[in-house]
Amino acid sequence: MTTYFPNVDKIKYEGPNTTNMFAFRHYNADELVLGKPMKDHLRFAVAYWHTMTQDGSDPFGVAVNQRSWFGATEMETAKNRVEAFFEILQKLGAEFFCFHDVDIAPQGNSLEEFLQNLDEITDLIKEKMDQTGIKLLWNTANLFSHPRFVNGAASSNNADVFAYAAAQIKKGLDISKKLNGENYVFWGGREGYETLLNTDMKFEQDNIARLFKMAVKYGEKIGHKPQFLIEPKPKEPTKHQYDFDAATTMAFIQKYGLQDDFKLNLEANHATLAGHTFEHELCVARSYNALGSIDANQGDVLLGWDTDEFPTNVYDVTLAMYEILENGGIAPGGVNFDAKVRRSAFEMEDLLLAHIAGMDTFARALKNAAKLKEERFFDDIKEKRYASYKEGIGAKIVADEEDLESLTAYALKHDDIKMESSHIEYVKNRLNDYLF
Amino acid sequence: MTTYFPNVDKIKYEGPNTTNMFAFRHYNADELVLGKPMKDHLRFAVAYWHTMTQDGSDPFGVAVNQRSWFGATEMETAKNRVEAFFEILQKLGAEFFCFHDVDIAPQGNSLEEFLQNLDEITDLIKEKMDQTGIKLLWNTANLFSHPRFVNGAASSNNADVFAYAAAQIKKGLDISKKLNGENYVFWGGREGYETLLNTDMKFEQDNIARLFKMAVKYGEKIGHKPQFLIEPKPKEPTKHQYDFDAATTMAFIQKYGLQDDFKLNLEANHATLAGHTFEHELCVARSYNALGSIDANQGDVLLGWDTDEFPTNVYDVTLAMYEILENGGIAPGGVNFDAKVRRSAFEMEDLLLAHIAGMDTFARALKNAAKLKEERFFDDIKEKRYASYKEGIGAKIVADEEDLESLTAYALKHDDIKMESSHIEYVKNRLNDYLF
Amino acid sequence: MTTYFPNVDKIKYEGPNTTNMFAFRHYNADELVLGKPMKDHLRFAVAYWHTMTQDGSDPFGVAVNQRSWFGATEMETAKNRVEAFFEILQKLGAEFFCFHDVDIAPQGNSLEEFLQNLDEITDLIKEKMDQTGIKLLWNTANLFSHPRFVNGAASSNNADVFAYAAAQIKKGLDISKKLNGENYVFWGGREGYETLLNTDMKFEQDNIARLFKMAVKYGEKIGHKPQFLIEPKPKEPTKHQYDFDAATTMAFIQKYGLQDDFKLNLEANHATLAGHTFEHELCVARSYNALGSIDANQGDVLLGWDTDEFPTNVYDVTLAMYEILENGGIAPGGVNFDAKVRRSAFEMEDLLLAHIAGMDTFARALKNAAKLKEERFFDDIKEKRYASYKEGIGAKIVADEEDLESLTAYALKHDDIKMESSHIEYVKNRLNDYLF
Amino acid sequence: MTTYFPNVDKIKYEGPNTTNMFAFRHYNADELVLGKPMKDHLRFAVAYWHTMTQDGSDPFGVAVNQRSWFGATEMETAKNRVEAFFEILQKLGAEFFCFHDVDIAPQGNSLEEFLQNLDEITDLIKEKMDQTGIKLLWNTANLFSHPRFVNGAASSNNADVFAYAAAQIKKGLDISKKLNGENYVFWGGREGYETLLNTDMKFEQDNIARLFKMAVKYGEKIGHKPQFLIEPKPKEPTKHQYDFDAATTMAFIQKYGLQDDFKLNLEANHATLAGHTFEHELCVARSYNALGSIDANQGDVLLGWDTDEFPTNVYDVTLAMYEILENGGIAPGGVNFDAKVRRSAFEMEDLLLAHIAGMDTFARALKNAAKLKEERFFDDIKEKRYASYKEGIGAKIVADEEDLESLTAYALKHDDIKMESSHIEYVKNRLNDYLF
Repeated sequence: MTTYFPNVDKIKYEGPNTTNMFAFRHYNADELVLGKPMKDHLRFAVAYWHTMTQDGSDPFGVAVNQRSWFGATEMETAKNRVEAFFEILQKLGAEFFCFHDVDIAPQGNSLEEFLQNLDEITDLIKEKMDQTGIKLLWNTANLFSHPRFVNGAASSNNADVFAYAAAQIKKGLDISKKLNGENYVFWGGREGYETLLNTDMKFEQDNIARLFKMAVKYGEKIGHKPQFLIEPKPKEPTKHQYDFDAATTMAFIQKYGLQDDFKLNLEANHATLAGHTFEHELCVARSYNALGSIDANQGDVLLGWDTDEFPTNVYDVTLAMYEILENGGIAPGGVNFDAKVRRSAFEMEDLLLAHIAGMDTFARALKNAAKLKEERFFDDIKEKRYASYKEGIGAKIVADEEDLESLTAYALKHDDIKMESSHIEYVKNRLNDYLF
Repeated sequence: MTTYFPNVDKIKYEGPNTTNMFAFRHYNADELVLGKPMKDHLRFAVAYWHTMTQDGSDPFGVAVNQRSWFGATEMETAKNRVEAFFEILQKLGAEFFCFHDVDIAPQGNSLEEFLQNLDEITDLIKEKMDQTGIKLLWNTANLFSHPRFVNGAASSNNADVFAYAAAQIKKGLDISKKLNGENYVFWGGREGYETLLNTDMKFEQDNIARLFKMAVKYGEKIGHKPQFLIEPKPKEPTKHQYDFDAATTMAFIQKYGLQDDFKLNLEANHATLAGHTFEHELCVARSYNALGSIDANQGDVLLGWDTDEFPTNVYDVTLAMYEILENGGIAPGGVNFDAKVRRSAFEMEDLLLAHIAGMDTFARALKNAAKLKEERFFDDIKEKRYASYKEGIGAKIVADEEDLESLTAYALKHDDIKMESSHIEYVKNRLNDYLF
Repeated sequence: MTTYFPNVDKIKYEGPNTTNMFAFRHYNADELVLGKPMKDHLRFAVAYWHTMTQDGSDPFGVAVNQRSWFGATEMETAKNRVEAFFEILQKLGAEFFCFHDVDIAPQGNSLEEFLQNLDEITDLIKEKMDQTGIKLLWNTANLFSHPRFVNGAASSNNADVFAYAAAQIKKGLDISKKLNGENYVFWGGREGYETLLNTDMKFEQDNIARLFKMAVKYGEKIGHKPQFLIEPKPKEPTKHQYDFDAATTMAFIQKYGLQDDFKLNLEANHATLAGHTFEHELCVARSYNALGSIDANQGDVLLGWDTDEFPTNVYDVTLAMYEILENGGIAPGGVNFDAKVRRSAFEMEDLLLAHIAGMDTFARALKNAAKLKEERFFDDIKEKRYASYKEGIGAKIVADEEDLESLTAYALKHDDIKMESSHIEYVKNRLNDYLF
Repeated sequence: MTTYFPNVDKIKYEGPNTTNMFAFRHYNADELVLGKPMKDHLRFAVAYWHTMTQDGSDPFGVAVNQRSWFGATEMETAKNRVEAFFEILQKLGAEFFCFHDVDIAPQGNSLEEFLQNLDEITDLIKEKMDQTGIKLLWNTANLFSHPRFVNGAASSNNADVFAYAAAQIKKGLDISKKLNGENYVFWGGREGYETLLNTDMKFEQDNIARLFKMAVKYGEKIGHKPQFLIEPKPKEPTKHQYDFDAATTMAFIQKYGLQDDFKLNLEANHATLAGHTFEHELCVARSYNALGSIDANQGDVLLGWDTDEFPTNVYDVTLAMYEILENGGIAPGGVNFDAKVRRSAFEMEDLLLAHIAGMDTFARALKNAAKLKEERFFDDIKEKRYASYKEGIGAKIVADEEDLESLTAYALKHDDIKMESSHIEYVKNRLNDYLF
């Protein structure tokens, strides 16, 4: 049997002192944390696009990645990629994966040919899934790369493009059913505007909602309803994307009555591009009961584009994992590494090393977050801080028993208010003890 | 009778060639634009805070503004300010004004004293309004400057602070009724978080919604229901403010069922701080039928804080005015100059010069926008651009007569899609002809 | 003779009311401004890369541009491009052009083959230049796209890459001599770092200076010394580029004693990425007597990457042109459109429409700037503002006749200082009259 | 004897498991790291302004800080502050301090009175210094807060302001001599421009250089030459500050020939406001042999203003400390906490808690950096990475033995270049092991 990584065996936990580059130092899949194996907390997924089709090009440079799966034809390459991908999944011990339709199969010369190619490749993927037990976290349709999507897909000014997008989504749901996908994602990379000068924002958003409702209806019809997820991103490639951030997307979801079927797939780098921390976005989603899944990566806050780096910042990931624990876990979502190797890390084995880095970081973060939860670090701070709402006037406010007049009467007698310090610098110093 | 600007008469339109610094070059209040006097399109309001109480201090510098209205006591100063303010309004020919409670009256040593001071000053203001015909666009409560609001007002962790805020809002609504205010604004400058480490986001937002509902209920009780407006801002002074931008605020409004009573008061500089153009925010609000009023100013997009400059960029204001025309006008809202003189413009007369600059800029912009509308510049571009939705498959999509299956069938036959160029550079060049 | 734009004749000035899309409304090449034809003020150059080889791809989308010059072989395409390029130059009436080595000729399979291809294509270009009178503003070597430059060229960690870069630069100077180039540009797109974790900043900058000195020496040897220009950019593609902005580059130039041979090629979009206005960068360069040439484009200040839009903002370009007039003109540099059509403007003719937009905008700006200069708008403001340095203590300070002790003595007697308002809002309002 | 912190004794190292809020968990002053006590590596300084005079106000809120040192007169308060300040220094075990002139003494009604006040207070400070052994790291003149500095000090358009500034600097140097200051700092908070529309950039920078030269000359005259330091900051309060960042300041220093007398005082939050990491700024300064001292704090990279938070991010501080170790230490500079308690941490004791957090963070970082250095983590990576310059063509390049022609000859034979992966994700994962 072919192997693409002949020098690397299944990657195992060897502890922090190992000198083996291809070992986990922190991620120990079956180790129990808060009574559950790490792998079930983390539900790691590998992304087809960054791992198998990303070539290392950037706006000022051509492809650099050295990859050994290119065949004589596009379909041969596509099949080799499936082999290599499952080898990576198995070597990493990742139990989930994600893909766009165009990642896995060549688009051919017609929609018909594309759909046939998808059938052929998903047959192969299904076979691999059956052999390995690896599961589909989510799939999606790429509605942004082809020239036809230059002005969007559902939001395109061209109705034929809407129809084409609908066909891709139908196929996406058929594939989801075939592969038993747990979620189905919509990322509107071109659903937004390049300029308001020629854009009818309301019309375009109405059309996006139309397509989403068609997807829900079709899922019902075929008896396969994955959790639908919308992935917010503020910009890039589009000047402005409609699903700017978690809150913006919740405004859209509520406006069009999609709450019952849609949750959010949140990405760390998209959060920072929108001016938020990742934990902020997770917390907003939780407040709407809409945290679906996450795209694990990190950006560079001094750069203004999507760098999609593998997550290695233990601060950020700890706070993200804490939100996930507060959410009662991320299932049926997962932790999908929507991350690409840096351009200077162009060798095949970097694909493994980078995932190891990400998985180790999440493992550290999970343990930190679990400890913060077990020791009630944040819980105690918040309980004390909001104590005034547990009794007296605070309790009555929360019970909706007060109004402006009664509160005015109260305030006139209680206008010499004592505030307490947050001691926030102390809190941050103590937090370091949980992390380091 | 006292005058604070003895060298300046009522400011009049004198045309672009005037050499009089204290004249409008472009704003001609009664000139008809699209069949309506400019003043009725623009509904200019002067802001009490930036005009009367702002002192020119900044985080690294003390007060610089030279103002001649200081009296022997705080109340005397407050009364002088009313005189001076109405002189400014009259000299500018501005028909509206806006204020926070703390702008107009000293807070005294107790809530009770503050409320009494407010009564006394609003009596004086009412008298002035009756004399001059000038109207209250909106008032609001300052729930962010006093130390008690260090952790927010409705979102404070301290229930006594919530009560105090309620008392201020009750008084604000009483004043609104007394002065016949057309709108009432909520800006949550401290409603957000300094750090998520000690914050319960959902609890805090629940409490904010509670206070808003109390305000609606009290308005109904006293038989005075101004249009309630929420003013989004992403940050500053708070690290993160809950009403981040228009869309975020709409998510909140929908979540708590406040659509019938609340619209948005949008500010140009808050838009850019959130990463949006002002016209974007206006367009988002329109798409939710929630454009209430605007705070007219401009930021410096290379700086990361709220500079609140007087608006002088004709590009930006033209596009904003176009959105307002598309909205069918801004009434019962208005164009409130939430703008302060630069620190180097510290003389009394700069208050007039700066408002003239802002009013002239809006006048230019109104005329530009009207011409764009009359000549259907944007309308024609959009009509042509979205034409495919007027017939055939597009019309059926919009009529909700299609589904994923029917669209797939269509797409299989129509997968060779022809796209048309936007010629967007040509559009921008032509747009310049409307502006210059 | 082949034409690539059969429907467009030479583009002429037809005045603001023309309905011809392919006409200048404002740029009138021979019209005198400040006693000199507009074309001699502006010295427009067309950029080979954005016009001939840019394909409309972006990080999330493939090529969209429709171009009719592709031939059966790479060399045939390269030759067709030369034809098409000179047709564009002639139709636009642009008298200059700029290119990277890789733009004009295929790189082949070896350095030797690349050099041969360059010879063949530059022969053709020279022929075209002789026929048309069009001149080379500058050429440069692309030392950033090929995988070998993944870690930089002169700053690469690999000495073989340094050598390869040297060979490209030698050829670039040979070509510059052959085509009588007036300037030669260095843009260090990968001269910087992806991460400081593995970077020796000082060593890398020493090496960059080494290569620059070799270039100077070689120019002297072959008797062709164009004005050498460094083009600052803060980031993208690299996380941090050493030539961050004008001032940073001047620090480098001075450190390595390169002042006599090097000036700056400044780009509008690079300025905003560095947190500056374009006029700021021009003014900094002027203060070091180092303003060499400009790359004309504009960015989107709400986006964090290099959008390279055609310049259409009359405010920004007017202030830039004012700096150029203050500089006594831009020659031997020029106004090079380092700008690309938006992705939605993918038709061939958009190449012309976009340049027309840019040229019209510069024409408006030139006229505005000339009027500001003729009427001494800024000169009068500054003369009045700094008047205190023309006499008394100010004059003595400027004459270096004072010291801390004498000034202390003076200050003790003059500590009640009167400041004057800038009336800056009035200035901005008046400035609008010059622009609109 | 008065104490301002009756409940807190001298703060000691008690190790990571202490439950005492007022103890160091990581900073152990006399513990040897790389053979030197931690305190000598770190040379901690407390800043007078943030600790003693900062009141917790912000642009939208009034003073909140609870401080117990206010007396009946300004001079009494000033004296109490000296007492309290030295109590804080002693309790923290900080051996250095820093101040602006206006921090320590009231400005009175004339320059003369201000100078007298300074004499009186510095007498008291000197007494305290003699008693405690605490040393002056640096002092400076506040040339930005008073209205006279609205347009700058040395760069003011008003020559009388220049003179006034000169008097403050003379006094600053006299005080430096009196208190045996090791450094003297210039931060040009208003040395820059609000708008280029009325600014003569070159003239203003010439004047700044003039004042700096006068300071050097006066130092020589009085026989006291501290290390002069310029502190870069890109903006705030000014729209653009001339000393934008380390590189910009080095351009200025070189232009005016100030290299022998001036180095840089670098601040973490100023680095991020300029778009750089702190370690970048330190590294740039090192490359110019100009790293003088640091202002220790941290910003919030999602906010666009100077938050001046106490440093608690162990990543950032570790990389900064590594640069300092590479610099051979920071002396005669130090680690000055230019950091303020968050507004919600308004109690007296937060001043201690916040410094403990900062000092503990630096202690952790110092140990991490020392380990990285001892184990040659970065050294080995770089040695391997740049190995090609140690022999062959690389060695000859570095020895300046090559030119464009010889390198072209080499490149023609060596154009099939092999690059090696950076394995950067692995590096980042391993780095975490040093930190956590």
